[in-house]
Amino acid sequence: MTHATEKIAVGILGATGTVGQRFIQLLEGHPYFYVAALGASPRSAGKAYSDAASRSWKQSTAIPAEVASLIVQSCEVQNFKQCRVIFSGLDSDVAGEIETAFLKAEFAVFSNAKNHRMDPIVPLVVPVVNSAHLDIIPHQRSVHGLKKGFLVTNANCSTTGLVVALKALQDAFGPLSRVVVTTMQAISGAGYPGVPSLDILGNIVPYISGEEDKLETECAKILGATNSDATGFTAPAELKVSASCNRVPVIDGHMESVMVEFAKRPAPSVDQITAALKSYTSDAQKLGVPSAPENPIIVKSEADRPQPRLDIMVGNGNAIAVGRIRECNIFDVKFSLLSHNTILGAAGSSIMNAEIAVAKNLI
Amino acid sequence: MTHATEKIAVGILGATGTVGQRFIQLLEGHPYFYVAALGASPRSAGKAYSDAASRSWKQSTAIPAEVASLIVQSCEVQNFKQCRVIFSGLDSDVAGEIETAFLKAEFAVFSNAKNHRMDPIVPLVVPVVNSAHLDIIPHQRSVHGLKKGFLVTNANCSTTGLVVALKALQDAFGPLSRVVVTTMQAISGAGYPGVPSLDILGNIVPYISGEEDKLETECAKILGATNSDATGFTAPAELKVSASCNRVPVIDGHMESVMVEFAKRPAPSVDQITAALKSYTSDAQKLGVPSAPENPIIVKSEADRPQPRLDIMVGNGNAIAVGRIRECNIFDVKFSLLSHNTILGAAGSSIMNAEIAVAKNLI
Amino acid sequence: MTHATEKIAVGILGATGTVGQRFIQLLEGHPYFYVAALGASPRSAGKAYSDAASRSWKQSTAIPAEVASLIVQSCEVQNFKQCRVIFSGLDSDVAGEIETAFLKAEFAVFSNAKNHRMDPIVPLVVPVVNSAHLDIIPHQRSVHGLKKGFLVTNANCSTTGLVVALKALQDAFGPLSRVVVTTMQAISGAGYPGVPSLDILGNIVPYISGEEDKLETECAKILGATNSDATGFTAPAELKVSASCNRVPVIDGHMESVMVEFAKRPAPSVDQITAALKSYTSDAQKLGVPSAPENPIIVKSEADRPQPRLDIMVGNGNAIAVGRIRECNIFDVKFSLLSHNTILGAAGSSIMNAEIAVAKNLI
Amino acid sequence: MTHATEKIAVGILGATGTVGQRFIQLLEGHPYFYVAALGASPRSAGKAYSDAASRSWKQSTAIPAEVASLIVQSCEVQNFKQCRVIFSGLDSDVAGEIETAFLKAEFAVFSNAKNHRMDPIVPLVVPVVNSAHLDIIPHQRSVHGLKKGFLVTNANCSTTGLVVALKALQDAFGPLSRVVVTTMQAISGAGYPGVPSLDILGNIVPYISGEEDKLETECAKILGATNSDATGFTAPAELKVSASCNRVPVIDGHMESVMVEFAKRPAPSVDQITAALKSYTSDAQKLGVPSAPENPIIVKSEADRPQPRLDIMVGNGNAIAVGRIRECNIFDVKFSLLSHNTILGAAGSSIMNAEIAVAKNLI
Repeated sequence: MTHATEKIAVGILGATGTVGQRFIQLLEGHPYFYVAALGASPRSAGKAYSDAASRSWKQSTAIPAEVASLIVQSCEVQNFKQCRVIFSGLDSDVAGEIETAFLKAEFAVFSNAKNHRMDPIVPLVVPVVNSAHLDIIPHQRSVHGLKKGFLVTNANCSTTGLVVALKALQDAFGPLSRVVVTTMQAISGAGYPGVPSLDILGNIVPYISGEEDKLETECAKILGATNSDATGFTAPAELKVSASCNRVPVIDGHMESVMVEFAKRPAPSVDQITAALKSYTSDAQKLGVPSAPENPIIVKSEADRPQPRLDIMVGNGNAIAVGRIRECNIFDVKFSLLSHNTILGAAGSSIMNAEIAVAKNLI
Repeated sequence: MTHATEKIAVGILGATGTVGQRFIQLLEGHPYFYVAALGASPRSAGKAYSDAASRSWKQSTAIPAEVASLIVQSCEVQNFKQCRVIFSGLDSDVAGEIETAFLKAEFAVFSNAKNHRMDPIVPLVVPVVNSAHLDIIPHQRSVHGLKKGFLVTNANCSTTGLVVALKALQDAFGPLSRVVVTTMQAISGAGYPGVPSLDILGNIVPYISGEEDKLETECAKILGATNSDATGFTAPAELKVSASCNRVPVIDGHMESVMVEFAKRPAPSVDQITAALKSYTSDAQKLGVPSAPENPIIVKSEADRPQPRLDIMVGNGNAIAVGRIRECNIFDVKFSLLSHNTILGAAGSSIMNAEIAVAKNLI
Repeated sequence: MTHATEKIAVGILGATGTVGQRFIQLLEGHPYFYVAALGASPRSAGKAYSDAASRSWKQSTAIPAEVASLIVQSCEVQNFKQCRVIFSGLDSDVAGEIETAFLKAEFAVFSNAKNHRMDPIVPLVVPVVNSAHLDIIPHQRSVHGLKKGFLVTNANCSTTGLVVALKALQDAFGPLSRVVVTTMQAISGAGYPGVPSLDILGNIVPYISGEEDKLETECAKILGATNSDATGFTAPAELKVSASCNRVPVIDGHMESVMVEFAKRPAPSVDQITAALKSYTSDAQKLGVPSAPENPIIVKSEADRPQPRLDIMVGNGNAIAVGRIRECNIFDVKFSLLSHNTILGAAGSSIMNAEIAVAKNLI
Repeated sequence: MTHATEKIAVGILGATGTVGQRFIQLLEGHPYFYVAALGASPRSAGKAYSDAASRSWKQSTAIPAEVASLIVQSCEVQNFKQCRVIFSGLDSDVAGEIETAFLKAEFAVFSNAKNHRMDPIVPLVVPVVNSAHLDIIPHQRSVHGLKKGFLVTNANCSTTGLVVALKALQDAFGPLSRVVVTTMQAISGAGYPGVPSLDILGNIVPYISGEEDKLETECAKILGATNSDATGFTAPAELKVSASCNRVPVIDGHMESVMVEFAKRPAPSVDQITAALKSYTSDAQKLGVPSAPENPIIVKSEADRPQPRLDIMVGNGNAIAVGRIRECNIFDVKFSLLSHNTILGAAGSSIMNAEIAVAKNLI
């Protein structure tokens, strides 16, 4: 690979949406990738991106100049021939078929959509957690009769932050038996226009459609192992997860109150748990990919942290912050956890997954 | 008692504070009680209430005219001679001694402060839950050598809503073994000036000093029974509670994500639990006291309820709203719960406790 | 009229929308009117209101039981035969033709929509300001060849609060020459789903489509007089209004910073202006209609008032609050003004207009 | 000056406060300056900064490591001997005397406090507006008998953004006669703990103590000229400013609705005004100091901009954003304006003023 001298052309599907915008923002000046093509709905196709997205661009930085002038295409394979990698921020109502078409056309597809996450031969990868799941790609290619193409998904935003901490604990202390998580999720997780302001200003909505099920299901897949011949994934035997999901009036940053019980007795102490979280590293760090944070987990020692407003950008949004690690009357430990739902929890995961795939010579 | 024709004079301690203001607001036009005296810090003493509270009055209704002209007194017994009942909204740094002085001077004292809540001969009463604990009052009087005076406390605001639901479940299905609660608490719970806006606007703070301990401890006392000779309280043997408390940018209304496990097997079904919550009633309903809501628990059937903005005033703020009653992967049931933290969760509880005491001829 | 014993049947068009919901809420238990029919889009027609509005009902009180079971109709004249009065909360894209059809079918139509507001024979009435404009109704009937029917509109929500104060000043001190108003408008003014939360949480949007033009134009019509033969309206000759409209993260309540210059010299003093605002009354007070607030204008003396959270319900939402009346370096006076945008600023105005029409024997 | 190779030691007074924190954040890695000493109240003196500020640090980036370990000093001259430049973020109740002491001890003092702003021999400088006012420094030194010391203040945060636009218009089209400004100011302008959340969440407060007077007074001084012998300032003869100041629930970013009338007739067109704002540059650009934004004014063409959430960081917080430039019924033009109240509006101005002073060899 010669990415230092020659960058890889990437296409972004769903480019005008909230996740698509984050891809564009995060890929500005990226050392491996450059944005070569943009796909969106037929309504936007044919327009310069700056026109197509002028009303909906909700990032606090401007549209990069080199992207602003790209002509938006419909999401068909022939419009992305110059690209090697596809990042998909498509809505789930269309993502399934479109992503499959790109996969079969030999693209390396990195998807935020939920459609293929639970497919038994599709890796569901949080880059600072289970990039080892990319080992299944040769098998995925053989099933589909592909040479270069493959499809990798990343997790739901509320799952993503949680599994970083759970993986650190599982690595250090063995299998987890029970995990209770209550989320307080930011409005940006619902996209744009997303949550009406009359529903959330000064309010809490104790429901996010499908979220609890995704959280409970995805955790098991991500925390599992690839089987011995790298043809599938095995979920942890003991793990039970129970989630309660709430929407809160925060722009970016999912907070989670978490309780964990370990399978092994005696359980580790709060100090041991704190040390394990602080010292956790993943393949992303070992490979040294550009988006990898120095530490995947930042442990805050102040009594009232983490907080979205103050801690959301730890590791440039690609790490998580954990605090209030303390004993629990019922389980072994409880703590508060914060992750950036549109960076590590969405576009940032996809990009780091692609970086890891480059580092592993899959691209 | 002749309250229909002759109202009972009450005094309010801590009258300029947030809880004191709610007392004044809720007592306007009360059928049993009228505000005859106001106590506050020496800084306010000697001023008309309208002057003392002009900057700090944060209710959405005006100061009642008959209270506005009352001269604020220092919180000493001799200034409240015309009163039979004392409502205390004092801060905990001064509440302990002052409330004891009023108790010993033969007043009926109803306190929001935490100081005496865990005293083994002081009832900790949520009026729609455990007014039976008032049975200990004769013993309390005998210990202190009193004829008429007694002291009743009400619970911490985050405890209050929770125990209403737990009591309904305990009454219907027997002892609870494990309860997990994650709170999302409104800013009015912290009083005024309370939470700085820079800390909470668009943010979540995963910490409220002392709150988790209060919640875990108070639940056990409230859900317990008086012993056979009415000289003390017995906490439920099996019950373990684990709380995680968060501050959220909501004005009024504490939301709680709750998980419950029953001691008995098999556990009741979701439908049975729903029915039990809907049909729950308490002594307050049976006695027909003025503040008693028709139903202590309103069960919302919509998928995304309860919500603070829409449901906070169920039962005029003296009921709780419960929704999303559903199965849990780990415990027997989980649900969302909302209560008004400054009505049922504070001044409203004190007032209803006093109404019940009147109905029980304790006043 | 026999409204004390026999209430008048009313129909509500646009019944599932935000304004329609307010009509339903405000008409619960109304002494003159009862809701006999509900109209909405074909999508809702045929459903019980409780089903049609279950997801969109965003009021903090429940749907009144007698309305919940009404079957929603399409907005056609034949579905409202039992009604004498029609309240329209229709969107402006359909309101024009539908309201005209009801007018021509001899209904008394009270509309919130903008479509007919500037029609030269349609009164644009803020009930505590210019109910004298109802004098044109005989002329309106004669133009349309009607016996009983007529159409009255009420003003845009940001206009409504302003003209109450301006009318009081004009009555007391003669014509106004220049008025500058900068609005900070609540999100409920945009209906539901209305403003996306990502646009307004912790943010200000300095633009509301069409709002500044409406404010500038409507003020002139409302502050004008009917001509001598009651066939039209004459705008005040000297009046110039310049508006700047902003959306702010407030649920209910439009705040306005206002500056006023009088045509006559010398201008009145701040004290004279304050006295005139305090003592202002309108026909609504003189006629004693049920929704009329005791005083249309509540003057707040505290330095930091009015505020939406504290003052929005003055006069049950049908009065305005004014404060910070002070000298201006450029004009004669400046002050802050608050009105409830969905009560006086929408459904409340329509209802009070209808009450006045009843009192004037127009219905 | 050898700042490229040898940085200038600076001290920060009021280092634990909100403005002091911004100084520390903005000076991290600064090409001219390094933080050598920190001053705060006696309560903090003697502690490491990381300890003194641990509870109050409210920036979204961590305390720079080299500052964290500095020992906080009391604000006395002898504790800052190693410094050449002093940045003061002191509260106005102590700033007056302390800053004078540092001035007389020959420091170059750059102050955010209001105390000395209107002193006739103290420049009140917004760096992208009137750095020419630094010409008075020789006179200031001679009055005080100083060789190197001088004192420069920067403006109130709500003044700062406004005068950038006004200066551009004055430069292009001659004197302004009347300016009306209604502000919607962020909570960070009030420091920490500052505005209680109960006062501002979902609310507007139409009052900020002293703000309107500061805005009206400071504009005149800043837009004035130094007199011919550089011994004082002359305010523009015709200029009248009328301000109405409101606090809004926004973290950072003051929005202002502005109306302007020019002294000369005919007034420029909206297009000419737009062009003048876009092309405006100041000494800061010409001198090329490190904090100078490429353009002091960014004109937004979208109908609904600028907005705090999206535009607050234009020019890294040292430019302003202007939009909605349009005709006005009363004055010549109206527009919306946004500035970062704690960067350009506070610490950023002080730092850029110091950079300009270095570039002008005053340091």
